[in-house]
Amino acid sequence: MTETIPVVQHLLDANEQVARENRALFDRTRTFVVNLMSSPGAGKTSLLQATLPRLPQDVQTGVIEGDIASRLDAERIAALGVAVVQINTGGTCHLDAPMVRGALQHLDLDRLDLVFIENVGNLICPANFALGAHLNVVLASTPEGHDKPYKYPGMFRLADAVILNKADLIPWLDFDQQIFERGLRMVNAHAPLFVVSCKTGEGLDAWLTWLLERYEAFHHPNNG
Amino acid sequence: MTETIPVVQHLLDANEQVARENRALFDRTRTFVVNLMSSPGAGKTSLLQATLPRLPQDVQTGVIEGDIASRLDAERIAALGVAVVQINTGGTCHLDAPMVRGALQHLDLDRLDLVFIENVGNLICPANFALGAHLNVVLASTPEGHDKPYKYPGMFRLADAVILNKADLIPWLDFDQQIFERGLRMVNAHAPLFVVSCKTGEGLDAWLTWLLERYEAFHHPNNG
Repeated sequence: MTETIPVVQHLLDANEQVARENRALFDRTRTFVVNLMSSPGAGKTSLLQATLPRLPQDVQTGVIEGDIASRLDAERIAALGVAVVQINTGGTCHLDAPMVRGALQHLDLDRLDLVFIENVGNLICPANFALGAHLNVVLASTPEGHDKPYKYPGMFRLADAVILNKADLIPWLDFDQQIFERGLRMVNAHAPLFVVSCKTGEGLDAWLTWLLERYEAFHHPNNG
Repeated sequence: MTETIPVVQHLLDANEQVARENRALFDRTRTFVVNLMSSPGAGKTSLLQATLPRLPQDVQTGVIEGDIASRLDAERIAALGVAVVQINTGGTCHLDAPMVRGALQHLDLDRLDLVFIENVGNLICPANFALGAHLNVVLASTPEGHDKPYKYPGMFRLADAVILNKADLIPWLDFDQQIFERGLRMVNAHAPLFVVSCKTGEGLDAWLTWLLERYEAFHHPNNG
């Protein structure tokens, strides 16, 4: 099966090229873009539902929703009055840069300051496909267990921030946060870890503060 | 990128061929094989830890553990005294039939009656790669949410049985079992649904009864 390797490499190279073009477009339109990745059901849409209404009112936001099927998540976001574009990958296990480029035609980037891309629920494949985003945020959830950074190192390695969601469930789980953190630090020394509950609101302030710092640094790079 | 399609099709065809050979080997050695698939952290290893000690003592069991990294799950299974082989895919997001064929060299199939293959934690890609197993069992967990069959239809469509784990957490979640079941039935009319908690033992009897019925039908096909 060695003949497939050049083809895969060609695909990844082509993806990188389009990701760079996406990034150049985001920089030109002054749109800060966050790629949000996690397992199925870790709470990516819930994090957006908790985050978007807590942002300053003058931040114009948009969302790109990636799913292999259904519009369920896009409907949850649209209910917030936020501009949202759905990508249905038709079975593909990740978003890629060309898919995002296609979706951008449906967003008024010149007007938008901050766009979240909710990737397909998958803790493996999305890590291999750059989209052009400024930040990669990886979401884990406590019921998935504290061993996830050890078992899915590639995803946790590329995270600029890690959010550990469903903290409200910890009393009912055998979840050891120290083991989780130790595993995270084995592959990623610097990404901040935010322990949150999108349900109760616990921990969201620290995440929002960090996100807005990065957002401000992008929009006003000379203030630092 | 159209040039990649024949290559992907070639890979899938090659996988199907090896899967058929694996199946022929399992039939020849009278080994019943179950392919267990789920999201990361839904509880595949916990299901095995709950299932293996509850099987009749004369059933000789083995486990193939698929992970992209680490031996954590294999160690949990080995602690039960069950024959276990670890496959580390080195980043690949699913097991394929050739990987399983390689692992089989380390299992004494002539001695084993029942082998579980724990696939990589991924609710998408493993559905595309037959391994040669007699049963595909899909595990979901309540904290992932009741929308999973709608969002990951490919995986639920091919299930011979669906196990909904972590039933003990339902009181603390916004989980509607009717919505889950309705989504499951949209893509899979016949697979039995077992609602269980590997932690409390709730619901495991029904799963074990069904599994052993299928196991007996394999080993004694003329009794039916």
